[in-house]
Amino acid sequence: MTLPHGAVETPVFMPVGTQATVKAIPQHLLEELDVRILLGNTYHLYLRPGYEAIRRMGGLHRFMSWERAILTDSGGFQVYSLSELRKVTEEGVSFRSHIDGSSHFFSPEHSMDVQIALGSDIAMAFDECTEYPADYARARASLEMTLRWAKRSQEHFERHKHERPWDSAQGSENRAQEMRNQTPNLFGIVQGGMFPDLRRESAERLVEMDFPGYAIGGLSVGEPREMTREMIATTLPLLPQDKPRYVMGVGYPDEIAQYARMGVDMMDCVLPTRAARHGLLFTSEGRLNIRNRQYAEDQGPPDPNCGCMVCRRYSRAYLRHLMVAQESLSAVLNTLHNLAFYVETMRKVRDELLALSF
Amino acid sequence: MTLPHGAVETPVFMPVGTQATVKAIPQHLLEELDVRILLGNTYHLYLRPGYEAIRRMGGLHRFMSWERAILTDSGGFQVYSLSELRKVTEEGVSFRSHIDGSSHFFSPEHSMDVQIALGSDIAMAFDECTEYPADYARARASLEMTLRWAKRSQEHFERHKHERPWDSAQGSENRAQEMRNQTPNLFGIVQGGMFPDLRRESAERLVEMDFPGYAIGGLSVGEPREMTREMIATTLPLLPQDKPRYVMGVGYPDEIAQYARMGVDMMDCVLPTRAARHGLLFTSEGRLNIRNRQYAEDQGPPDPNCGCMVCRRYSRAYLRHLMVAQESLSAVLNTLHNLAFYVETMRKVRDELLALSF
Repeated sequence: MTLPHGAVETPVFMPVGTQATVKAIPQHLLEELDVRILLGNTYHLYLRPGYEAIRRMGGLHRFMSWERAILTDSGGFQVYSLSELRKVTEEGVSFRSHIDGSSHFFSPEHSMDVQIALGSDIAMAFDECTEYPADYARARASLEMTLRWAKRSQEHFERHKHERPWDSAQGSENRAQEMRNQTPNLFGIVQGGMFPDLRRESAERLVEMDFPGYAIGGLSVGEPREMTREMIATTLPLLPQDKPRYVMGVGYPDEIAQYARMGVDMMDCVLPTRAARHGLLFTSEGRLNIRNRQYAEDQGPPDPNCGCMVCRRYSRAYLRHLMVAQESLSAVLNTLHNLAFYVETMRKVRDELLALSF
Repeated sequence: MTLPHGAVETPVFMPVGTQATVKAIPQHLLEELDVRILLGNTYHLYLRPGYEAIRRMGGLHRFMSWERAILTDSGGFQVYSLSELRKVTEEGVSFRSHIDGSSHFFSPEHSMDVQIALGSDIAMAFDECTEYPADYARARASLEMTLRWAKRSQEHFERHKHERPWDSAQGSENRAQEMRNQTPNLFGIVQGGMFPDLRRESAERLVEMDFPGYAIGGLSVGEPREMTREMIATTLPLLPQDKPRYVMGVGYPDEIAQYARMGVDMMDCVLPTRAARHGLLFTSEGRLNIRNRQYAEDQGPPDPNCGCMVCRRYSRAYLRHLMVAQESLSAVLNTLHNLAFYVETMRKVRDELLALSF
């Protein structure tokens, strides 16, 4: 993918940087991990520090000092999962902030305005993430509204996408000129619950709208893993192969490798970063709960087959100590390892696919 | 100073790594900051992960993957300030752990055993840190016990200093051979409350015992700053100029520069790291509380005259956002800047002193 803020090789895993930071990790270490694209959460950034403030400061990239690509979600999913007293109507969603209880309203048009102000490389259409379980009638109604919202998102986005904040970007004159020729991209989102025929219909009608990329949403919401795989397998062939195909909110390392081999180009998940903060490390030998007593004097690296900056330098015993002593370095080192493991997992799949293509 | 784990240019500020970590900072970034010596807290490491465990793992350097120098305190100060139900007798101090309430006993001999097991480059004699305010009789009694304890510390240390844990150190055969010729060093501690004559007496009797270095303890315990300076000025000339002179637990950037110019070689303080976690940044323009509303859209660096990795990359607005959003990256970046500022403060004083000496 060639995006305003650089090229991204796919399939790719996108670490989640909810509040303009991948929790605990300085940006230069993300660069050292070879992270090429981050996900930012529109809902959180809208509430704090605010999208108008970020626009005034030249956009999210400049605000957080991250010159590589950023994808933003539409804000919808967090409104459903975090905010209080939400009310969904055809017009949009009204909700109260989980931070201070203040009242807000998101519509497809407003979500586009916010994402354009943030200066995302990839903005997402405003959708309704269908809950699980949902019956057929509910999934159908939700899907229909998501399609109407996709249309409204697209129309508003196309009218306003030139209002991106990076015209004030610093750097060379060449770079500034180059950025003036770039606009963000808007991806559509397939919904349809766990019903293959609704997934197919959603995909077909979305493709007719002609987005530069497509996401499969409403997965990893509590359904069994086999069902996730089935929905991806059903939907993927209906989305254009020559455009990025993104499965939102997955998954474990073996899942992201599996989906990438099926043809998924992009994935994101809080799992590597959130699990790290709880002491769960992903390794070539499986999952490892670093808090366990058995690692108290284990001087081996977290993963003997990993060459990341954590595995090269620190022992399981040390990481366990940091966790047990509730030291903040624990989250830093665990997160660095898990992200390195995810990045490496995707690199291996890319190599595999490249070898197959010859 | 030439220590078992490398040379340290003085005057030097030692960041505090209480629980085998300078809170929130990976060791390779401490190296990038050019930190040459850390302070470890014997009380904390004794309780968790335990000194026998650290000894079995080859010592504190290997445990935390820090190959540069480490100084450990005696554990006394934390016993007085953190533990519960402490009882001080001539023999030593019994106390309960602040973590789980378990009962423990520290004597001069035991403190030496623990510090030798940790493998410190510099161990500190077990002292009683006289509280402030203390009357003359109390300061005299406390000083006398500290001197008796210094003698016991020294005798036990000299008998056991070859039991350091680093004989199992990894690395080249040359390096292993070199380490076998090295032993830790024990510094004595001057007490005497805020009474110049007691400080003088304490220093003179301690110097008679012939330690390889001397600390001035019992300062920065609540007394006015002018009194701190006076006690240092009184004591310093009585300590040998050709041996390291260490003032424990100070201070603000202007204080450490002032004391270094007076002839102090070593200082340590939690201030730069603790203040950072509360959003207080030290800069060439004074103190800056990054949480203040006025920085919400301030795109300047934290300190326009600082070349550290934080000031080169991030804005005040971004650091304020991280603080307000309670993001863990806040502690990482604030701490990196404050430590860089302290390291740079001492580097400038060293350059100044070097220029004066020509």
